[in-house]
Amino acid sequence: MSIFEQRESEIRGYCRVYPVVFDKAENARQTDENGKEYVDFFAGAGVLNFGHNNERMKKAMIDYIQSNGVLHSLDLHTTAKRRFMERFTKVILEPRNMPHKMQFMGPTGTNAVEAALKIARRATGRREIVAFSHGFHGMTLGALACTSNQAFRGAAGIPLEHVRHLPFGCETKCGDCKLGCGIERLDELRAAYEDGSSGLLPPAAFLVEPVQAEGGVNVASKAWLQALSKLAKDVGAVLIFDDIQAGCGRTGSYFSFDDMGVDPDIVCLAKGIGGIGTPLAMNLVKPEIDKHWSPGEHTGTFRGQGLSFVAGTEALSYFENDELMQDVTRKTATMREAVDPLGDRYTSIQVRGKGMMIGIDVGSGEKAKAIVSKCFEKGLLVSACGSGGRVVKLIPPLTIPDSDLKFGLDTLVETTHQVMEAA
Amino acid sequence: MSIFEQRESEIRGYCRVYPVVFDKAENARQTDENGKEYVDFFAGAGVLNFGHNNERMKKAMIDYIQSNGVLHSLDLHTTAKRRFMERFTKVILEPRNMPHKMQFMGPTGTNAVEAALKIARRATGRREIVAFSHGFHGMTLGALACTSNQAFRGAAGIPLEHVRHLPFGCETKCGDCKLGCGIERLDELRAAYEDGSSGLLPPAAFLVEPVQAEGGVNVASKAWLQALSKLAKDVGAVLIFDDIQAGCGRTGSYFSFDDMGVDPDIVCLAKGIGGIGTPLAMNLVKPEIDKHWSPGEHTGTFRGQGLSFVAGTEALSYFENDELMQDVTRKTATMREAVDPLGDRYTSIQVRGKGMMIGIDVGSGEKAKAIVSKCFEKGLLVSACGSGGRVVKLIPPLTIPDSDLKFGLDTLVETTHQVMEAA
Amino acid sequence: MSIFEQRESEIRGYCRVYPVVFDKAENARQTDENGKEYVDFFAGAGVLNFGHNNERMKKAMIDYIQSNGVLHSLDLHTTAKRRFMERFTKVILEPRNMPHKMQFMGPTGTNAVEAALKIARRATGRREIVAFSHGFHGMTLGALACTSNQAFRGAAGIPLEHVRHLPFGCETKCGDCKLGCGIERLDELRAAYEDGSSGLLPPAAFLVEPVQAEGGVNVASKAWLQALSKLAKDVGAVLIFDDIQAGCGRTGSYFSFDDMGVDPDIVCLAKGIGGIGTPLAMNLVKPEIDKHWSPGEHTGTFRGQGLSFVAGTEALSYFENDELMQDVTRKTATMREAVDPLGDRYTSIQVRGKGMMIGIDVGSGEKAKAIVSKCFEKGLLVSACGSGGRVVKLIPPLTIPDSDLKFGLDTLVETTHQVMEAA
Amino acid sequence: MSIFEQRESEIRGYCRVYPVVFDKAENARQTDENGKEYVDFFAGAGVLNFGHNNERMKKAMIDYIQSNGVLHSLDLHTTAKRRFMERFTKVILEPRNMPHKMQFMGPTGTNAVEAALKIARRATGRREIVAFSHGFHGMTLGALACTSNQAFRGAAGIPLEHVRHLPFGCETKCGDCKLGCGIERLDELRAAYEDGSSGLLPPAAFLVEPVQAEGGVNVASKAWLQALSKLAKDVGAVLIFDDIQAGCGRTGSYFSFDDMGVDPDIVCLAKGIGGIGTPLAMNLVKPEIDKHWSPGEHTGTFRGQGLSFVAGTEALSYFENDELMQDVTRKTATMREAVDPLGDRYTSIQVRGKGMMIGIDVGSGEKAKAIVSKCFEKGLLVSACGSGGRVVKLIPPLTIPDSDLKFGLDTLVETTHQVMEAA
Repeated sequence: MSIFEQRESEIRGYCRVYPVVFDKAENARQTDENGKEYVDFFAGAGVLNFGHNNERMKKAMIDYIQSNGVLHSLDLHTTAKRRFMERFTKVILEPRNMPHKMQFMGPTGTNAVEAALKIARRATGRREIVAFSHGFHGMTLGALACTSNQAFRGAAGIPLEHVRHLPFGCETKCGDCKLGCGIERLDELRAAYEDGSSGLLPPAAFLVEPVQAEGGVNVASKAWLQALSKLAKDVGAVLIFDDIQAGCGRTGSYFSFDDMGVDPDIVCLAKGIGGIGTPLAMNLVKPEIDKHWSPGEHTGTFRGQGLSFVAGTEALSYFENDELMQDVTRKTATMREAVDPLGDRYTSIQVRGKGMMIGIDVGSGEKAKAIVSKCFEKGLLVSACGSGGRVVKLIPPLTIPDSDLKFGLDTLVETTHQVMEAA
Repeated sequence: MSIFEQRESEIRGYCRVYPVVFDKAENARQTDENGKEYVDFFAGAGVLNFGHNNERMKKAMIDYIQSNGVLHSLDLHTTAKRRFMERFTKVILEPRNMPHKMQFMGPTGTNAVEAALKIARRATGRREIVAFSHGFHGMTLGALACTSNQAFRGAAGIPLEHVRHLPFGCETKCGDCKLGCGIERLDELRAAYEDGSSGLLPPAAFLVEPVQAEGGVNVASKAWLQALSKLAKDVGAVLIFDDIQAGCGRTGSYFSFDDMGVDPDIVCLAKGIGGIGTPLAMNLVKPEIDKHWSPGEHTGTFRGQGLSFVAGTEALSYFENDELMQDVTRKTATMREAVDPLGDRYTSIQVRGKGMMIGIDVGSGEKAKAIVSKCFEKGLLVSACGSGGRVVKLIPPLTIPDSDLKFGLDTLVETTHQVMEAA
Repeated sequence: MSIFEQRESEIRGYCRVYPVVFDKAENARQTDENGKEYVDFFAGAGVLNFGHNNERMKKAMIDYIQSNGVLHSLDLHTTAKRRFMERFTKVILEPRNMPHKMQFMGPTGTNAVEAALKIARRATGRREIVAFSHGFHGMTLGALACTSNQAFRGAAGIPLEHVRHLPFGCETKCGDCKLGCGIERLDELRAAYEDGSSGLLPPAAFLVEPVQAEGGVNVASKAWLQALSKLAKDVGAVLIFDDIQAGCGRTGSYFSFDDMGVDPDIVCLAKGIGGIGTPLAMNLVKPEIDKHWSPGEHTGTFRGQGLSFVAGTEALSYFENDELMQDVTRKTATMREAVDPLGDRYTSIQVRGKGMMIGIDVGSGEKAKAIVSKCFEKGLLVSACGSGGRVVKLIPPLTIPDSDLKFGLDTLVETTHQVMEAA
Repeated sequence: MSIFEQRESEIRGYCRVYPVVFDKAENARQTDENGKEYVDFFAGAGVLNFGHNNERMKKAMIDYIQSNGVLHSLDLHTTAKRRFMERFTKVILEPRNMPHKMQFMGPTGTNAVEAALKIARRATGRREIVAFSHGFHGMTLGALACTSNQAFRGAAGIPLEHVRHLPFGCETKCGDCKLGCGIERLDELRAAYEDGSSGLLPPAAFLVEPVQAEGGVNVASKAWLQALSKLAKDVGAVLIFDDIQAGCGRTGSYFSFDDMGVDPDIVCLAKGIGGIGTPLAMNLVKPEIDKHWSPGEHTGTFRGQGLSFVAGTEALSYFENDELMQDVTRKTATMREAVDPLGDRYTSIQVRGKGMMIGIDVGSGEKAKAIVSKCFEKGLLVSACGSGGRVVKLIPPLTIPDSDLKFGLDTLVETTHQVMEAA
């Protein structure tokens, strides 16, 4: 029995899907301890936008370590943190006229969401959060109450309160979905908030992923997102965007909502922001909301790690010109060209996505599982998401070489045909 | 205006206490950007047990990065994770006959506590957690409900439920504390659980820090901890120890409770376990409890980071022999020799602690603040904790050179005299 | 200052609308202490279906008192209770093939609703109750959580949990209502219950008034009620009808839903069931749900009062033949003939209702208040209900003499014209 | 099968203990349908302080009905209500210099408690209520959260929140009780409220029965009640006394706490206040708290029933002189003389009580049940209460004839000996 079987918690999950021991990794490839290579269309669940062991980041990190840079500092000021904040301000915030403040917290997405919920409740003096079907926001109790998947919610062991789930406003109707998303539902919600006998009160915040990743690669429609934004403003609620998986360049722009014409009050970031997988989480918070914090009210030991700032600063250099984003646009086209025909060929398949996050909804968790498993055997890492795990999600590093991208797409398409036709 | 004033959230805290920008760090010293050096009796809030930029860990990390080791892997198996788990099993668990499984989650203490609460509630089918006055367990809603400090609780914006706070069983009565800790309270609690009309039901778990750090350096009495342990067992509740700040060698043994004769069902670890400040959190969970998890029920992007395993594995080498722990015993004696007389001299001062975590309760938050501030000016980093911030907490790296320790103690004692006599 | 001003709580309400002291009452008339008579279109908020001081009931009560019948007995068996139960079974339940058990509790509607919620949660093992916008179910915390009016909810002082409010399915669209009622919402709800990532779980119960009284006289559409009934059955939820104000003959049949083709699991009754205003509350509960109770789990001192059984038994005699119900049909026509033209004449007026519960929605709380106040001056008691109090509600005793009915209708119509034209 | 077996809910309870059908009742005697008479030491669970079918009340009620007095009036002013309020003010409030306002609500004790909790939370802006072990306050969710008995709490089906239960401060230690009641617990509670890191905040209210009836006839010690009163005042919490079962003369004075030297902010009354079993509930609320109500915020159909005011006004005449209360003192002595020797004789028996509410704690629910059952056979109605039903509670009408009292006491003592000696 391996040490993992002997001593690792039964909760271990992904390692059951890819039952090997990985040893090395470089850009879009991982190598297991037996030397077998895999092309990585999974990218650490969206963390590794710039590839495994990105050379520029490696160099910067090694230099930093060798020079005895501050590795751990809670929320003290460090020169590494200053460099990151200055770069982020110049490269990301100023070009967008975003006045937001940066808040660092425990370096996981769920901590970022928890902090956002707290300040939204504080700033409004209200309790309820509106979250959306198929949304994923984390595992700690505050964020979990906003996560919609019952498989996660059921683990809480206590009621998850003060959150109302409403249907998400998808760009395209997902298969035979009957949840009733759409702008008219927001109109009804507005009417309920205005009616003193509806049983509803205006919420503290609307928490939404502009592109739902774990929920099955569901892209919010622009019109719905704008209507939601207007509703939030009109009823005095905070608009929180969780861009943890879809942000940091994944969709062809830094934020997944850059082309949506909306102005969120809070943006939650994590995953890709640390650049190379070094943990970091950050909220962007409008000053008029941020000012409601008292110093130290939401602490965390690992707020703002030195190496995360160093690698994260390197990551920002990808956004100083549009080279990478143009490359993402080009690769997105390559990907859609390869997989869109699957949707044409099989009525039970729907292809959705934005930029280099693409979901292939094969209509059944079993089929998706078969595709993931067969791809793995062939040397391709992909994972499934969405209701019942029926969506195969493609999120390769944005820096993936064309040849690896081609191998991955060929493998995926071929495997999908095999599985669909075997059914 | 600096970038921090312009763009960092108002929530920033420690940087207001130490208003400089740190640039370099080595073992027990930090250097600000102007070249001023500080001896560090704060150690990143208990993370840096083995010093800033520990040489062995630096080397191992650089080697790992250069060899393209896997940096980010969710809960996939990696060779780095295997090395860590094997070493932890051999060095820590087996010598103690601990059958516990290791669970990795989002790399912050609060995530560890949230996971512990979930599995305790699942395993027992109960809801209530008993936590203790002056306890600190984190900022996310589940953990925050267990944290006792109202300054943190008030930020939740919603009621914090399903947790009952009871007085902590201190080894020594803290000043004029009237909370009524003691074993007789546990007897009454038992009576209440046995009485169907007490309004109380047996809890899912008791969550306790054997040594409360943030709460003011309160050491649980052995008898109380044993009585609590017996009560938990008798009423079918899970016994959870939060050893996040006091564990990993801080008190002169790997666990802060090694000499307590108790057998916790779950131990939460974080902070020091990553060795050099690289984020890592891990729960040790008895198999009969751990088996209640379904795969993937409590996920997290940054579960088990490569660099954290690498540095954390190096940290474990300090426990392969008793050299460091003997050194801690020696340095503890040095520290007590220096600061115990403060308690003798001033009736309003009480010195408490275990191993190299020592609290000097100066009876007032203002005095403690003055001490912290004057020490900072003199080149010593210490912080305050406890109710109203009235306890000056000394947690230097365990590896601190004797000269730095002496400087720090001299500075602290001198400053304390100054502040106490000025009053 | 009167004793009321000196010593009665500031919460007193209706007495501010009708600021006189009532002394006598007979059928549809009340007389104040100065001898002024009022025709009563209010009927004690729907309690006095059979008129004030109904002669048959008076006689029965006096006989009972004189013979030393048991007045107070908790839930002991008494001969009076037996007579009531036998009569109710024979006259109401058996003709409808209703297998329901009768449960008596504290003699208020809110206690009945609380008991219904408890047994629905027990029987299903679920927590959430679905209630509806504009619904009114009582003031104690369990029932209040189901009541939708924020003016009442706000008095709780704590969050009202475990209840989800959805739009009520009105027979006719109420003015410019945009809440989005309708069967399609139930379809979406079903889809949400079937989708493991909607964030919703099937509820313990749906709690609905077939005719909302306090909410503004909103009549559920038959199709919607049937769809709701089917949804409840399909998802394993208990269907609870709150017929407290609309039941006991008010709508032209004993239950307000007799013509709806639905089969509720639980029916909550109070108000009219005691006949003459003597407090009584009773739930009708299907045996397969009722069996989940343990003896004495939901107690109450005044369960089943002797005088309430005596007067209530007399009330049942009105349903042994169809004389009264035919009279109600005739009077309903008289009422609609009088008030329907108001809806034709004024675009801002909508007339709604079922049987002898009629609401005149005048579109504004101020106008309704003016109508109520002017009617009172002219000797007619009516009250306002609905969102912002904009609906004038007509609920005269079913036994009202034709002349009093005519006086009331003439007065109301004339006053409405005055108020509408003054605007 | 009787109609009760066929059609009454399985929840029926007391009728299983006394399985006959009662037909008539007069003062301290009830007669079943077969003509068998029972002496009543149960008095409708404390409602019938002035006996079944009290002649003066019967006459007043019949006169009122015959004269067409207003039977049902919500919270409208009536001449009957005025008479009651004036008499209550003159006879009860003014002699005690109580400035309290009278609030009427749904006519059950639980509704009174719910209203008290609401206004306490509103007035303080706080959420938590402190209630006490063995306390009983009702069945609706707000009151049930304060009730301590798990047999009742378990029926809620949802978590009961915002209430903390602490040990009740008994006058005498109850048997082997180890709950830790006593004034020192209140001191610790005060310390916790003053300590920002205790996890506790000062509550909205303390809710306590000066004499716990259902909880096992536990009499609060005067010193404890005074300490509680002082604590409430000091921390800005509302002091609520639930005198629903022990009030209205039961203990030898109108309020059970008249001799305690305390000044509650709110007193909840029900049961005995309606005089003859006619439902009525009333809170006495200090004006500075009462003023926080908005009109109509806590409604209820059966607030203040005409017959209850009529009979209740008659009941007040018993307090215009001290005749009845002196008789209670005399009868109390008779009762104690009879039953105290049981406590001397059997070490497992403890006799507790105040005035004509006496509990015989026989140490086991089974023994108590046997006593109740054998007494019933012999023609005496008594009931059991307390943890596990181990306390035989004696609450005869205060007006019981000496001969009936003697019969009851003889029967009870004889039966207790039989049961205790058979064990």
